[in-house]
Amino acid sequence: MFPPNLIDAATRLLAECRSRRLKLATAESCTGGLVAGLLTEIAGSSDVVERGFVTYSNEAKSELVGVPPELIARVGAVSEEVARAMAEGAVARARVDIAVSVTGIAGPGGATPGKPVGLVHFACARAGKTTIHERREFGEIGRGPVRLKSVELALQLLARQARA
Amino acid sequence: MFPPNLIDAATRLLAECRSRRLKLATAESCTGGLVAGLLTEIAGSSDVVERGFVTYSNEAKSELVGVPPELIARVGAVSEEVARAMAEGAVARARVDIAVSVTGIAGPGGATPGKPVGLVHFACARAGKTTIHERREFGEIGRGPVRLKSVELALQLLARQARA
Repeated sequence: MFPPNLIDAATRLLAECRSRRLKLATAESCTGGLVAGLLTEIAGSSDVVERGFVTYSNEAKSELVGVPPELIARVGAVSEEVARAMAEGAVARARVDIAVSVTGIAGPGGATPGKPVGLVHFACARAGKTTIHERREFGEIGRGPVRLKSVELALQLLARQARA
Repeated sequence: MFPPNLIDAATRLLAECRSRRLKLATAESCTGGLVAGLLTEIAGSSDVVERGFVTYSNEAKSELVGVPPELIARVGAVSEEVARAMAEGAVARARVDIAVSVTGIAGPGGATPGKPVGLVHFACARAGKTTIHERREFGEIGRGPVRLKSVELALQLLARQARA
């Protein structure tokens, strides 16, 4: 179901994490569980994947991974600050080594002033290391493609933090 | 990415839930987020999908959706009892109307005496209604196919509960 390049990337990431004895979690909004779904497509992923949070609503972002509601009210759910809070909250709540977060506007609706369709913020936290953040504007390439490209970048960030 | 029949089923389910003003959540083990990932592939799904729990580890099943650890120790994570507890816990924790759960052995490893590869338990809970349960033995058809068939059945159970 997932494209071969993503299966390959997931397989490599899991091997990297396994060799370093790293456990991971995900905190996904616009990808809605696809990052976890891809990683768990690989046999033996339970050595590495501890859990995933599909924090689709704002309440879920606050309740499951501890994003302060007032932060969401101030800067919006699709923001660097919320992406960072999601990833760091996922590490803390799941008690894992690494967690990636994805929050964006997959479209076709949902754009707001300054936040176009295709805007996605990513963060990847690792216990004891500096959280990394990336921002992408994929443009109006379609909902499915925005989500797949987001899954791809999320895996790249996990790989970067695994080697950090 | 998802097969057209699953996209169609997800589209119909979301329309059914929307017309009845039902919110839903997912609690996934062997499907690892694919049910949530499929539902959120449909534009406008945030009207209906509140959150998803990817409860891959036993700890996640207990912490996120309240499955008693002693129940898992007694009957195993792949069981009717745990599937029911996951679905009912997801309704309670997410404060939604309906939740589906999936717990199974996607393979190729993981079989235990009496629990072959391809065995999957499903439950679907709705607030104020009787929880439904299904058990399937898909056989050794491959990890990906077991997961996809599980996603398909999970959607059927959500549709049954939505119309209950």
